[in-house]
Amino acid sequence: MEKLKGAVLLGQSGGPTSVINASAAGVFLAALDSEYVTDVFGAVHGVKGILNEEFYDMRKEDRAELERLKNTPSSSIGSVRYKLADPAKDDTDYKRLLEVFKKYNIRYFFYNGGNDSMDTANKINEFFKNSGYDCRIMGVPKTIDNDLNGTDHSPGFASAAKYIATTFMELFHDATVYDTKQVTIVEVMGRNAGWLTAAAALAQAKGQGPDLIFLPEQPFDLEFFNKRVEEVVNAKGKAIVAISEGVQTKDGKYIPELFKDLHTDSFGHAQLGGTAQVLAEEIGGKLNVKVRAIEFSLMQRSAAHLASKVDVEEAFNAGKLAVEAAINGESGKMVGFKRISSKPYVMEYVLLPLSLAANHERKVPLEWILPNNEGLTQDFVDYALPLIQGDCKAELEDGLPRFAKLKKVRVAKR
Amino acid sequence: MEKLKGAVLLGQSGGPTSVINASAAGVFLAALDSEYVTDVFGAVHGVKGILNEEFYDMRKEDRAELERLKNTPSSSIGSVRYKLADPAKDDTDYKRLLEVFKKYNIRYFFYNGGNDSMDTANKINEFFKNSGYDCRIMGVPKTIDNDLNGTDHSPGFASAAKYIATTFMELFHDATVYDTKQVTIVEVMGRNAGWLTAAAALAQAKGQGPDLIFLPEQPFDLEFFNKRVEEVVNAKGKAIVAISEGVQTKDGKYIPELFKDLHTDSFGHAQLGGTAQVLAEEIGGKLNVKVRAIEFSLMQRSAAHLASKVDVEEAFNAGKLAVEAAINGESGKMVGFKRISSKPYVMEYVLLPLSLAANHERKVPLEWILPNNEGLTQDFVDYALPLIQGDCKAELEDGLPRFAKLKKVRVAKR
Repeated sequence: MEKLKGAVLLGQSGGPTSVINASAAGVFLAALDSEYVTDVFGAVHGVKGILNEEFYDMRKEDRAELERLKNTPSSSIGSVRYKLADPAKDDTDYKRLLEVFKKYNIRYFFYNGGNDSMDTANKINEFFKNSGYDCRIMGVPKTIDNDLNGTDHSPGFASAAKYIATTFMELFHDATVYDTKQVTIVEVMGRNAGWLTAAAALAQAKGQGPDLIFLPEQPFDLEFFNKRVEEVVNAKGKAIVAISEGVQTKDGKYIPELFKDLHTDSFGHAQLGGTAQVLAEEIGGKLNVKVRAIEFSLMQRSAAHLASKVDVEEAFNAGKLAVEAAINGESGKMVGFKRISSKPYVMEYVLLPLSLAANHERKVPLEWILPNNEGLTQDFVDYALPLIQGDCKAELEDGLPRFAKLKKVRVAKR
Repeated sequence: MEKLKGAVLLGQSGGPTSVINASAAGVFLAALDSEYVTDVFGAVHGVKGILNEEFYDMRKEDRAELERLKNTPSSSIGSVRYKLADPAKDDTDYKRLLEVFKKYNIRYFFYNGGNDSMDTANKINEFFKNSGYDCRIMGVPKTIDNDLNGTDHSPGFASAAKYIATTFMELFHDATVYDTKQVTIVEVMGRNAGWLTAAAALAQAKGQGPDLIFLPEQPFDLEFFNKRVEEVVNAKGKAIVAISEGVQTKDGKYIPELFKDLHTDSFGHAQLGGTAQVLAEEIGGKLNVKVRAIEFSLMQRSAAHLASKVDVEEAFNAGKLAVEAAINGESGKMVGFKRISSKPYVMEYVLLPLSLAANHERKVPLEWILPNNEGLTQDFVDYALPLIQGDCKAELEDGLPRFAKLKKVRVAKR
């Protein structure tokens, strides 16, 4: 296929991770190195920035700072939660995107995000194709939730999993320090898929993890929860519980929803949180023991100081490969990971149709979940352990991480 | 002074830290190396274990595992919150302690803890002295709160401060990622002294910290809090707030207390928590912006993977020096730190009377606090920055920390 000359544009979307900027570094550095790329733009807050013609000129950045993006958490050019309409019903945004892409001669577009973002990239790709505008559109996977379909795993998951496993081990030591009865309930992110909460099983495998693990893959029963916690406290004096923020009763109710009204975000997702708190109050009253509710909150997705080396490298390579594939003529694809083996860990980068990843959620296989919420099988441990290997973090300056400092020079509006 | 032959006993007390086990390693290894030490005991859950004649035989442990205690968080032999009575009023516990010490020929006793623990050690020291029982009793400082009197700082503080500064930097990147208005309120531990919350100023010094810092050293005013947060949100679109769990109104009310009943622990201290949550709900309703409450919870005191090298080494040395000083005849003292200079960081180990440290709380100097809750002065940064230098963590095994594994062999009751 002929090589297309034009500008590269990257957008970051959805919740940030420890390594989304590593993918950005992969895209930017590969784009800067290509003879076919005339400009390198970063969208200010994803698709919203594109609609508003708001771009950073990445050619103005120091290369050393772009390299530092590999170890800088969160979305350095700004993220967004904005869902495009179905173009069959309302194509206003798509027409506007086409206009902007033409005006800036954007011929390569990379969207770095999760299911919703892959859906967005897919719709734009279809619309542009139907409009006859030659633009290569590629998805770069990103989600701590690890629920992207078609790929063995997604960048961001492994670093969050490493944070969760390490922190559970540390909490295990802290939460067992007194000789009094105690229940510690730890809430982990994950809307519909329990991959992140399951990562607590890596701490269990070291004998320093939670006693009970509750995933959203299984319906939650408050009575059974209370019973199991009581059994563990009676047997061991302590109970440490890992629970996903996304667990639901068989009637589809989230835990905080059992107690108060629930709000939804612009994608129609429920705004969660408070699951551990609510359950701690419930169980504390029932068992008359000391309880503590802990939320890993934003730390689990931004603790770049504890990033997995495997994750950082794969995230970077995913961005780089997306650019290389696009220049070689690919479009409408997402970079995915195909596992060849776990011991030793061998993985192949593959290209998947965006439509495969878009809006399909990949969940923890039910056969990997042990009965009675005791944890996960060895299959899960074998799956997750290779992903969290190695340390890779920002160099220290004054004992603190030296994150990337971008100049963020805006592109003049045309 | 004559050298005393007998058993060494260590007790760990109060809330654990990332480096309390490093002090234990210092005590155990120095004791094992001394020709004057006949036995090395670890009290099972501090003073409570002593009263019950429950000891671990530390001579049965592998030396390599005792070395690994340096990087293992929490209190490996178990902690306790137990306050001895005033011996003038009730000397039952003291008599029992004396009996146990005599029975096991314990001639060296090290108590590793904060203000309350130094008070306990001091009372035991006085009682034994008055009873004519020759026993060297030394305090080894430990508190993330950094409020021990007479010493420049205390082991545990620096590692927690490093966690707090690093995490605020990471949260800064995460909490500013969307172009929507947002308030993030982060609650930090610290009952009466604001040292830990002040550590957020180290992130501020890097331009990646909170906008507002609220310490317990200053009375909290809800109206002023709301006003300041609103000002910051209006000016910057985001507000990140660091607040100590211990802030009180001028009437002495804790924040959650303004909304619900408050329980107290066995020392008569208020059980805190929920400060960020309550304020987030308050400000969210007032400003109609997205709010998020974050608690660093147990992570701030157990994140050994982010320990400061300076802290680990000082904690270890404090334990080691306590043993050496006791063998050389010292008693009734606490190992303290005297700062000679900050740039470069030069520190001298000193011995302080236990009575000096006991029950006096050292607070953040008011002249180090900037007006309008904007943060801390450069004096604070110069004070705290040298303490968080260097990384020092457990080696990785399967990508996860390899913490010490103790055999915990019990000493037969005599």
